[in-house]
Amino acid sequence: MGSWLEGKTLANKIKEEVKDEVASYLKTIGQVPGLVGIRVGEDRASKVYLRTKERACEKLGIHSEILNFPEDISVSLLKSKIEQLSSREDVDGILIQLPLPSSFDSHEIITSMPPEKDVDGFHPFNLGNLLLKKDGVKPCTPLGIIELLKFRDISIEGKRVVIIGRSIMVGKPLAAMMTNENGTVTTCHTRTKNLPQVASEADILVAAIGRGTFITPEFVKPGAVVIDVGIDSLSDKSKVEELFGKDKKRQEDLEKKGYTIIGDVHPQVIEKAEYLTPVPGGVGLLTVAMLMKNTLEAFKRRRDL
Amino acid sequence: MGSWLEGKTLANKIKEEVKDEVASYLKTIGQVPGLVGIRVGEDRASKVYLRTKERACEKLGIHSEILNFPEDISVSLLKSKIEQLSSREDVDGILIQLPLPSSFDSHEIITSMPPEKDVDGFHPFNLGNLLLKKDGVKPCTPLGIIELLKFRDISIEGKRVVIIGRSIMVGKPLAAMMTNENGTVTTCHTRTKNLPQVASEADILVAAIGRGTFITPEFVKPGAVVIDVGIDSLSDKSKVEELFGKDKKRQEDLEKKGYTIIGDVHPQVIEKAEYLTPVPGGVGLLTVAMLMKNTLEAFKRRRDL
Repeated sequence: MGSWLEGKTLANKIKEEVKDEVASYLKTIGQVPGLVGIRVGEDRASKVYLRTKERACEKLGIHSEILNFPEDISVSLLKSKIEQLSSREDVDGILIQLPLPSSFDSHEIITSMPPEKDVDGFHPFNLGNLLLKKDGVKPCTPLGIIELLKFRDISIEGKRVVIIGRSIMVGKPLAAMMTNENGTVTTCHTRTKNLPQVASEADILVAAIGRGTFITPEFVKPGAVVIDVGIDSLSDKSKVEELFGKDKKRQEDLEKKGYTIIGDVHPQVIEKAEYLTPVPGGVGLLTVAMLMKNTLEAFKRRRDL
Repeated sequence: MGSWLEGKTLANKIKEEVKDEVASYLKTIGQVPGLVGIRVGEDRASKVYLRTKERACEKLGIHSEILNFPEDISVSLLKSKIEQLSSREDVDGILIQLPLPSSFDSHEIITSMPPEKDVDGFHPFNLGNLLLKKDGVKPCTPLGIIELLKFRDISIEGKRVVIIGRSIMVGKPLAAMMTNENGTVTTCHTRTKNLPQVASEADILVAAIGRGTFITPEFVKPGAVVIDVGIDSLSDKSKVEELFGKDKKRQEDLEKKGYTIIGDVHPQVIEKAEYLTPVPGGVGLLTVAMLMKNTLEAFKRRRDL
């Protein structure tokens, strides 16, 4: 029986550190980091995510704004808005909430901002520097995973790391970061054959596909560290009970919201793994903490602090 | 007993295509691509490599120049020379021959050129776009490997690919490209444990470490495709005979040059693999062909052709 590897302690620690540093810069130079979130259209999840980030900023003393544009804004107008933010002295971070409506090429929009203000780390210049193991902004979720492992003294060096999923938000940058940390990294995806067998070679297994409970114990080597990055929702009451028993929080979720959030990893995996990150309460908490840290770092880098 | 997977036929085909296209642009718009190679100091191998590239340009009708700077040139002067080339209309490709003398930060120098003229594909912006599976210049050697496999109808999709070596010239960009081609990719390096066992999981094994004959049959799954990217030299006559028997070309090398060029893969591997690329005569030939193609592509992209 393994242990739950929760994100809360580290996320709070990072946020406390950011808060203290922000407060000290306000005192010494009279400035605080500024983050602007951009949302296009009315995607409900995007609204929730941005609101979460805004609240985190408020708590840490980071100035934040959310710009909301209609779905039919022209590409050129959106880019000129980004250009305005790029030249604003008080804006350190620009966050384009994904996904953009399908009429936009998110690569084109992201590339239109200066890499040093791309606090999500999705600009090609930042991703290239990540591959090169050079300084630059790193994507928040993979960065949170690496920091969580380090925080819990789980060594990556020489370990076999299997990452399921090759998104630009998680899988691809995480593979580069794990390789830079001297892990032996395998990236799997929809075209991988014998996935359970490949996954069970891992000392550290990362699931980032967004298919609730897809990763069952047969994917897991006994004693492995399992990182669950997936987010899916489940509204079937009997299925929730089958997975989580009479878990009070889950029952409340069902009653209040009509669903509960689950990860890619089946809860039975805890019996086989050494560690498993819960969903919610695992790496998700670190993503927001890392965004705050990236914003502070951008603020410092731009001012040579 | 496997077959040798030579690079010559494809390299010649690519060069013929580039030559024809260059000739047709000369006819229609009166312009040809231009490539400028930069060498700093007196590294002998760099001299040879640049001369090889210059000769390839000459044969294909591409205009080429080599700028040679003394080892003690200042960083700012070198960067201003690169800036001049960046704004020259007739220069489509800038190639900074690596390694630079140790007093230079090659990342700083490479990043000082515009990504669209970086025909080696080592600029972070280009590497980021490679990770993102977007258009952009791709590093020549990995590109050559992918093209060789496609040319010989060796499918990558769903295959287990193991890459030994994580350099920015070969291993890292190749891992991204193989993942983009739907291979299940594992990257190994000096810190990998049980390397022969991990390597022998590969359907496609790529060795890019530069340690002559390091990859012996125990690293190879029967029937695997083995790509040898290593370049090493061997001058011990009895060792050469032990490896290659009375091979006439090798004997001549020893007599004329005092050494023969060998790869990372032990020649015995041919008995176990389905295919093995020879060294010399394998992927090395494709690297130069791809550089020519990248230069032509840069020329076309800059003119919207």
